[in-house]
Amino acid sequence: MYTVIEGGVTVAAGFQTASTAAGIKYKNRKDMAMIYSEKPCKAAGTFTTNIVKAAPVKWDQKIVKESEYAQAVVINAGIANACTGAEGMGYCAETAQAASAALNVPESAVLVASTGVIGMQLPMDKLKAGIAAMAPELSGTIESGTEAAKSIMTTDTRKKEVAVQFEIGGKTVTVGGMCKGSGMIHPNMCTMLSFVTTDIAISKELLQEALSADVKDTYNMISVDGDTSTNDTCLVLANGMAGNAEITEKNADYEEFCKALNYVNETLAKKMAGDGEGCTALFEVKVIGAESKAQAVTLSKSIITSSLTKAAIFGHDANWGRILCAMGYSGAQFDPEKVDLFFESAAGSMQIIKDGVALDYSEEQATKILSEPEVTAIADVKMGNASATAWGCDLTFDYVKINADYRS
Amino acid sequence: MYTVIEGGVTVAAGFQTASTAAGIKYKNRKDMAMIYSEKPCKAAGTFTTNIVKAAPVKWDQKIVKESEYAQAVVINAGIANACTGAEGMGYCAETAQAASAALNVPESAVLVASTGVIGMQLPMDKLKAGIAAMAPELSGTIESGTEAAKSIMTTDTRKKEVAVQFEIGGKTVTVGGMCKGSGMIHPNMCTMLSFVTTDIAISKELLQEALSADVKDTYNMISVDGDTSTNDTCLVLANGMAGNAEITEKNADYEEFCKALNYVNETLAKKMAGDGEGCTALFEVKVIGAESKAQAVTLSKSIITSSLTKAAIFGHDANWGRILCAMGYSGAQFDPEKVDLFFESAAGSMQIIKDGVALDYSEEQATKILSEPEVTAIADVKMGNASATAWGCDLTFDYVKINADYRS
Repeated sequence: MYTVIEGGVTVAAGFQTASTAAGIKYKNRKDMAMIYSEKPCKAAGTFTTNIVKAAPVKWDQKIVKESEYAQAVVINAGIANACTGAEGMGYCAETAQAASAALNVPESAVLVASTGVIGMQLPMDKLKAGIAAMAPELSGTIESGTEAAKSIMTTDTRKKEVAVQFEIGGKTVTVGGMCKGSGMIHPNMCTMLSFVTTDIAISKELLQEALSADVKDTYNMISVDGDTSTNDTCLVLANGMAGNAEITEKNADYEEFCKALNYVNETLAKKMAGDGEGCTALFEVKVIGAESKAQAVTLSKSIITSSLTKAAIFGHDANWGRILCAMGYSGAQFDPEKVDLFFESAAGSMQIIKDGVALDYSEEQATKILSEPEVTAIADVKMGNASATAWGCDLTFDYVKINADYRS
Repeated sequence: MYTVIEGGVTVAAGFQTASTAAGIKYKNRKDMAMIYSEKPCKAAGTFTTNIVKAAPVKWDQKIVKESEYAQAVVINAGIANACTGAEGMGYCAETAQAASAALNVPESAVLVASTGVIGMQLPMDKLKAGIAAMAPELSGTIESGTEAAKSIMTTDTRKKEVAVQFEIGGKTVTVGGMCKGSGMIHPNMCTMLSFVTTDIAISKELLQEALSADVKDTYNMISVDGDTSTNDTCLVLANGMAGNAEITEKNADYEEFCKALNYVNETLAKKMAGDGEGCTALFEVKVIGAESKAQAVTLSKSIITSSLTKAAIFGHDANWGRILCAMGYSGAQFDPEKVDLFFESAAGSMQIIKDGVALDYSEEQATKILSEPEVTAIADVKMGNASATAWGCDLTFDYVKINADYRS
């Protein structure tokens, strides 16, 4: 079992970060970060399924697939380097060159990630100056990791990081992560930008397998607005410095690692959903009693992406008809006249629907439950034992405000 | 060719309407309407594909399928009679009984339609009193039709009606329609409540075929919020009183009718999109140069349902990256680096993207174009000759306001 500890990407042995205000687009704040590992890392990644892929996504897919090792990640906020053609691809190579020179690592070991406005070109002079400024400042402190997590934010209101520790054969293994993501969030394969570092020793194949399996239950189960980004990237770097015997098969150690990775990814995913653009509440939806996992996933994601349901959550309104409606158009088959529905939060829990029809519940009590910063809806379709959990947020005035004029 | 004329469902020969303030849920306004034909009608219908179907949808599906004729429609606003179990189905039968007695038509010739809050039961005493009050007031005037169109509104801000006339063999044929719909609009098979009346003589089979084909290009191509309602219903009643030789095969007369029906349905569909909850602009999206109609439909619908794109339209912001992004996650295959994108409106037109990359366009001019009440985006994917047009609206503060507390 793992223990949750303080910090993010710098707590695993051998990992350092730096961050700087490069002035790429934001004023008066940091907008670049760098992750560096003292030793070469096995790297795994999952990326957006949007066929409009940003240049850094294409770059990282190549590195993860073809390079034996990765050792650094250069991240910028403000400009996404998406829809930037051949020029944008060239900037990824230039970034890797600059980091390679500054850190004395091969260019093929440098991953890059960008987030921000689509369609603008990166100011490479500022990006290179940022890399030069960060390299001498690399540090493995918790504070340095936290600064990095802040630097990659766009419309995020909170930095997002988490870390856990567990033991393998007497060796302490650490897994930590940070991410950013607030809008254009409807991951499909992975989410916005998420970076996980670990000192575990594990084969590259199993690292990728563990990540690919886990994103299905974590990043792929959140949605802020139904828009799958061009830049979604999740990278995991494992440098082996924990000193455990390298994991090369799916044994008990692998399972322990998967559990820790799941906690880190799920926590980061929920932090993104709970910090969705303009949102006032994390909205969790559990579908239980499903006949298959796929059915439960389809139903729960349909509910968290329903604009009408999300607006009702913002209004603390137990408008369960919209939830049943969203289940009905999801494409999944079920009997609406068997559905039970419950709401719960720190303020209590209550059943709203039994067998598809409303109970004589107290609207006042329901509103009280729905007024908490984290609210859960549980739908039981009574067909089997499969279940799924999805996370989203409410739809608010501020979501519209933020997105009606994001570019200016 | 057809001519657009004044009026709605009462202009075709033999059709009358009445409306009343039955006090079902709204105060101080009409909330019930009735359509009646002097002669029995062939009836066709298309209905929601949501598997959570409101009781009136199930009732009408049975009538359209099994009854030889229909002669009346009873409509109420305020309560949707959805998720109301056996009790709700019983209310449809009671409504038909009451209308049957009041109008001297068979129960099997009475269609019913409801729109409003999901999950509440209808107050049948008020509904029956409404039917009794309306029956003696039936009238074929244009004003009566307009009053009916107003009575069925929920969050709509404008009544929606349209009518056209054309000739078949020296006989004047009229097709008129009215509809309501503003939120929970993402039709799949048909849209919210739409009623089309015509005096054409046509076989029941061809009437249904013409409608089923037409909804694919009209009601199924609009979206306000991505939520497919439990109550979507489109009904067409044809009473044959134009005196034309009954259309029983797909001849030139059938084609003329299809064109007129398409105009009526497309006009009503656009009126719904342009009156989407809280919206300030009708947003039209044309995808051209597609390799298939299906591809063009998928791409255009993905754009009009993108929350981020819709928020940008509200902000008059030419944030084309969101449009390309929405195309990219639609599931349709295309080459992002070949896409051209144009914006146009009454204020002018301009190209924004050429071959996937932004042109050096004037943001000021783009904002001017996007500030009109009707704006169009045209995406050319340069793969073939197929195209599709979809209609939606912008995402605004008022959409959230309306839906955060719709029930109170």
